[in-house]
Amino acid sequence: MKIVGGPNSLNLACKIGEALGIPLIKVRTKRFPDGEFYFKFEENISGENILVVQSLCPPQDVRAMELFLILHTARDLGADTIKVFVPYLAYSRQDERFLDGECLSASMMAEIIEELGADALYTVDVHNENVLKMYKIPVYNLTASGELARYFAKKDLKNPLIIAPDDEDLAIRRAKYAADVLKTEYDALEKRRDRYTGEIVTYKKDLRVRERDAIIIDDIISTGKTVANAARILKEQGARRILVGVSHALLIGDSVKIMMENGVEEIVGTDSVINEYAKVSVAPVLARALRGEVEQA
Amino acid sequence: MKIVGGPNSLNLACKIGEALGIPLIKVRTKRFPDGEFYFKFEENISGENILVVQSLCPPQDVRAMELFLILHTARDLGADTIKVFVPYLAYSRQDERFLDGECLSASMMAEIIEELGADALYTVDVHNENVLKMYKIPVYNLTASGELARYFAKKDLKNPLIIAPDDEDLAIRRAKYAADVLKTEYDALEKRRDRYTGEIVTYKKDLRVRERDAIIIDDIISTGKTVANAARILKEQGARRILVGVSHALLIGDSVKIMMENGVEEIVGTDSVINEYAKVSVAPVLARALRGEVEQA
Repeated sequence: MKIVGGPNSLNLACKIGEALGIPLIKVRTKRFPDGEFYFKFEENISGENILVVQSLCPPQDVRAMELFLILHTARDLGADTIKVFVPYLAYSRQDERFLDGECLSASMMAEIIEELGADALYTVDVHNENVLKMYKIPVYNLTASGELARYFAKKDLKNPLIIAPDDEDLAIRRAKYAADVLKTEYDALEKRRDRYTGEIVTYKKDLRVRERDAIIIDDIISTGKTVANAARILKEQGARRILVGVSHALLIGDSVKIMMENGVEEIVGTDSVINEYAKVSVAPVLARALRGEVEQA
Repeated sequence: MKIVGGPNSLNLACKIGEALGIPLIKVRTKRFPDGEFYFKFEENISGENILVVQSLCPPQDVRAMELFLILHTARDLGADTIKVFVPYLAYSRQDERFLDGECLSASMMAEIIEELGADALYTVDVHNENVLKMYKIPVYNLTASGELARYFAKKDLKNPLIIAPDDEDLAIRRAKYAADVLKTEYDALEKRRDRYTGEIVTYKKDLRVRERDAIIIDDIISTGKTVANAARILKEQGARRILVGVSHALLIGDSVKIMMENGVEEIVGTDSVINEYAKVSVAPVLARALRGEVEQA
């Protein structure tokens, strides 16, 4: 197998190559003056088994078009099999019609990725597992919870408690996974609809977090409101420190500010999203998956 | 038939609807806080014949993803036939491999547009007609030259001469088309490779442009260098005024400045690209094409 790093995930691709002991394919990419993307394989890939690595974090449309063009070229040049690693799988919100006439963007992504020749898709902590049912090819939803927990294990933590920001099945599985790695406990906030405002709020009376370090484990932080709310509750219930481990730290607008204001001390993201919070790599997660060591949430 | 205006071509879609006397479908579009596109048909389109209008001018990747999502939704909701009008067809550069290993982006665009259910594609003054051979569905390359010429016909022109900025077949056909509408002559600069620098330059000794108004008719203006060069030559040969009519006025960077500095007095673009130079609509061109009145370059 040989690895192709998309423009958004070159470092990640390098790390995967190192972890697996396999080479990166030399490629050339550029943008034309008018903004169009150009891609070129600098070596022959005919008959090769290819792994394409490209996260689809914002700007999603740009990252998606880059991925599509790489897939199209790989298949066109005669790659034998094409595995795709998309740590952040954009457009995973719309997997069903909440209202008549809505787009099913997750279904479109699946259709294009398959049409362009992908043989298998690996992703990390997808927000909604139903999205994966859109694919006919094998799909693997890996989790970064273990790697995030390993990061926190190196810190001097006091009796840590892992917190899932809501009590949905996936969130709890991720929290449990992290707790197992840290050999500690986990708990979850409960999702409820406010009877008066109709808003979805999270709360839980007794989190047994007094004098303990709380680690919130979440899949995506976008506006930061959910985590800010969780942090406020944890502080109210006497948490000592509040740390956040997140697979996809999108961190839109003033999300970091509102989390910090509500007591969050540190935010740890992964290289699924390239920013200053990407302190953990998802490369080992994929490497283990490709070796057959399953690490799915 | 009913018309859907993509987010980049709503006004154009309205004009086409008016020209054809058919209604626009109500849709809702938005961007989520993280940048993902959302689309919703506000009325039932099952069994309808749909025309989707969306130009793919910069930012091309964003515009393309919007188009893909609209197509996917239209087909998914049971549209009977889907015609697509893409005045500016982005990614029309790479239709063949100039170097081994290169992407064929034009081929990818064709594959996705067809996969998502388009039954026919209409475009305007595509830069390279080979791109159209990538499609299995019927493709119509319309020209805006006639509409541009009609715009200039309203001006007080002195013995106008239409100029093609190079002598390639398509460029000459567009110039001839405009000249026929204006009932005047046309001429073309000649494309040559400079023997010393290897650069492609255009020139022609005797353009018979002295004391005449020159109208350069071009398909795309990106950096503006080709037109600036043509304008300089026309001025040298005694042109009175230099006007430019262009189907797709991308106008990257300081393109307008360098054209003006070389003697261009006015730039007239179409609503294929939304900017202050979009003084002509391509709506009548499509309307005539749909009525079966061919206006292909």
